[in-house]
Amino acid sequence: MKPVFTLIVLLIALISCNNNNTSKSIENKVNKQDSIVVKNFFNTALTNGQSYQWLDYLSNEIGGRLSGSPESAAAILWGEQLMKDLNFDKVWLQDVMVPHWSRGEKEEASFTFNNTKYDVAICALGGSIATPTEGITGEVIEVQSLEEVESLAEKLRGKIVFFNRPFDDTHIQTFKAYGGCVDQRYAGAMTCGKFGAIAAIVRSMTNSIDDYPHTGAMSYGDIAENEKVPTAAISTKAANLLSEKLKENPTLKFYFKQSCSTLPDEPSYNVIGELTGSEFPDEIITVGGHLDSWDLGDGSHDDGAGIVQSMEVLRLFMLNGIKPKHTIRCVLFINEENGLRGGKKYADEAKAKKENHIAALESDSGGFTPRGFTFDTSNENANLFLSWKPLLAPYSLNEIEKGHGGADIGPLKSETISLFGYRPDSQRYFDYHHAATDTFDKVNKRELELGAASMASLVYLLDTYLN
Amino acid sequence: MKPVFTLIVLLIALISCNNNNTSKSIENKVNKQDSIVVKNFFNTALTNGQSYQWLDYLSNEIGGRLSGSPESAAAILWGEQLMKDLNFDKVWLQDVMVPHWSRGEKEEASFTFNNTKYDVAICALGGSIATPTEGITGEVIEVQSLEEVESLAEKLRGKIVFFNRPFDDTHIQTFKAYGGCVDQRYAGAMTCGKFGAIAAIVRSMTNSIDDYPHTGAMSYGDIAENEKVPTAAISTKAANLLSEKLKENPTLKFYFKQSCSTLPDEPSYNVIGELTGSEFPDEIITVGGHLDSWDLGDGSHDDGAGIVQSMEVLRLFMLNGIKPKHTIRCVLFINEENGLRGGKKYADEAKAKKENHIAALESDSGGFTPRGFTFDTSNENANLFLSWKPLLAPYSLNEIEKGHGGADIGPLKSETISLFGYRPDSQRYFDYHHAATDTFDKVNKRELELGAASMASLVYLLDTYLN
Repeated sequence: MKPVFTLIVLLIALISCNNNNTSKSIENKVNKQDSIVVKNFFNTALTNGQSYQWLDYLSNEIGGRLSGSPESAAAILWGEQLMKDLNFDKVWLQDVMVPHWSRGEKEEASFTFNNTKYDVAICALGGSIATPTEGITGEVIEVQSLEEVESLAEKLRGKIVFFNRPFDDTHIQTFKAYGGCVDQRYAGAMTCGKFGAIAAIVRSMTNSIDDYPHTGAMSYGDIAENEKVPTAAISTKAANLLSEKLKENPTLKFYFKQSCSTLPDEPSYNVIGELTGSEFPDEIITVGGHLDSWDLGDGSHDDGAGIVQSMEVLRLFMLNGIKPKHTIRCVLFINEENGLRGGKKYADEAKAKKENHIAALESDSGGFTPRGFTFDTSNENANLFLSWKPLLAPYSLNEIEKGHGGADIGPLKSETISLFGYRPDSQRYFDYHHAATDTFDKVNKRELELGAASMASLVYLLDTYLN
Repeated sequence: MKPVFTLIVLLIALISCNNNNTSKSIENKVNKQDSIVVKNFFNTALTNGQSYQWLDYLSNEIGGRLSGSPESAAAILWGEQLMKDLNFDKVWLQDVMVPHWSRGEKEEASFTFNNTKYDVAICALGGSIATPTEGITGEVIEVQSLEEVESLAEKLRGKIVFFNRPFDDTHIQTFKAYGGCVDQRYAGAMTCGKFGAIAAIVRSMTNSIDDYPHTGAMSYGDIAENEKVPTAAISTKAANLLSEKLKENPTLKFYFKQSCSTLPDEPSYNVIGELTGSEFPDEIITVGGHLDSWDLGDGSHDDGAGIVQSMEVLRLFMLNGIKPKHTIRCVLFINEENGLRGGKKYADEAKAKKENHIAALESDSGGFTPRGFTFDTSNENANLFLSWKPLLAPYSLNEIEKGHGGADIGPLKSETISLFGYRPDSQRYFDYHHAATDTFDKVNKRELELGAASMASLVYLLDTYLN
């Protein structure tokens, strides 16, 4: 090989090699001071954290807090007062009109097979209409999908449609299994009425085979009033039992009764507090979760955890003497569960006021042990975020990757904002999600605190490095 | 710069660049077939796993199984029969003489402060002698370390020594906090008697502040009989209360009573089953956990989880039609908790028979969500193991790093064997470890199954790539 040609070959190799080293050179951006700050956040959260005690109060003294309920009002006042007690620079309530759906009396359901009556556990889905006061009784047709409803069409007349497609347990991330099933809950009832079906019952959205029904939002879309049918979730154990018995007797009769109702919209609030930025007070980093919860449990994982972690982020800054350059805003969004009115209102007002939101982080995946963050951003920023991996790895934050930010911060999405989702371990989340089992005793103190410190660390890095 | 000199500079740069790329070239060793096998292991474990049902039986039908107890005998027979039912190629019991310590009646303890009697939760430490039948009553001296005992010396005469150094909660990995405290439990009593102290009580080894005492092994070493004092663990809540009251009244009297005893050694067994290797039947990869447990709970996390996962590893090979090249041996070790006789016997016999053990994997950190593996091996093999990271990352097995293998497989250590520890998340482990709270309901089905699949994946890679 001639020297000049060799030189060219080597130059090409070196350039390609440098490209491979990009991540290494970015790593150096994170300096020792950052490591110290992050370590201090974790030390403080684990030895002097307040998030667990706050969650204890929210869960055990206030409890489940569906939008428009007295408990949601109590939670709003509690959050506002707590932020004031913490001496955030500003604390205020943002008006939001929210839907007000109420469960009414405890539901009942049963079916009879071979002269044996089986009582089964159901709960009305959020937004459903009631059954007649005497309940609904009818034959059941089991289906696996919305598409199957369309194909069965008129065969559904007079029947109760039973959506029974289970979670795909082979998904390592349980949110993927949820995403693969939840259309049945959200849109099942919407698809049935036009064919004359009389109700829709839906297998609970969980990996767990147990006797707890899991509620959640459903929608009738814009179908006519006379096509609306009542809809409920049925526990996975009861779903399996019903499915088994239907194979032996396809004409068995299922009965259920629920007395839920939709009341007029209620005035409510997002609770907002901030630490005002020292250099760029008009550039905002939002961190939040949702204050409302379903009514069956006390909403500890969904999303009491996210609420207390978000407030703890600001407290960790204060306790460690970190004065943010940008404004760090903590938002306790209202009505994530059945309307997303809080998230929409926050984004609408930000737009109307021409606020400059540079980043937002949501914690709404439970208070479990940390795994990492997902981000939704421009490619340029992605490289910056990925460069923080070595700094976060000692805290078992290994999964820093592209993905969804969060429902409440979703409406803020623009070409310039970076959205983040805090990602704890997902294995146990759907054991409790929207069920009576989502209670304070399911939250581990250290896991919750590690999450708060993880979030504070990300917010600190965003404040330090994001332009 | 002259061309030749430039050439040299570029060559140096390129060589250095290639070194940085080593890990990338190693990645390619893991081929697509490996990905498929690993995915199949996870799919099978999550949809058709047996580990959770086995653990249900072991925990709820047999329960806590301290070495030498009737329950440990029942567990041995259960394990042997299960391996036979699973049609492993060979199943046998290996004789092991084990210590037999028995707790006796439930312990009692209290102290009186300002005329109020406080009953507190304690439990005898494994290996301790009993108190006199009327119990022991005495003043308390609180210490933070074994060194403090030595410096206090004769001031301890007639006193109950109270070891109260807490877990350092700032350690992200809770095993580090345990390692920083457990000398008090193991050797506390050993250090006191020579100064005339009458007993030792030790703060429970846990991050959790609750009312459950955590037992565990202690030793008197080779001190004289008349220097042996009874020793017990006290719950963290009681430890905090006692410490607080001692500050106000350093002469308050503490009372406790325990009736534990050490009986003659008992014949017992390691339970062993194997899939014989198709190409290298004389080269052995061992996977195991320990069958014995403490007596307060049912030993679900410590180490029922490791036991059922280890058996499931072999079942996952069989179910997926993977015939190992090397012999894969599943060992349910006896007596890890208070003697390690099973681990020692297994290694002794391996040595006596000149068996060629190329790798061993232990699961003894609970049945929690997977984080990764630690390995103890030669540097050459370390690079091989690290090259598997991309293959394991989709299963949240991100932490593949040097570290401890496990207590039971420790005696196998040699210059040629690679030892591995399965590492689930550690945050909740010491909430339950050695306490009455280590029960089946604390184990999540998916987390347990993911662990079994993780272990099967590692064993498969070892079988495929280790020479």
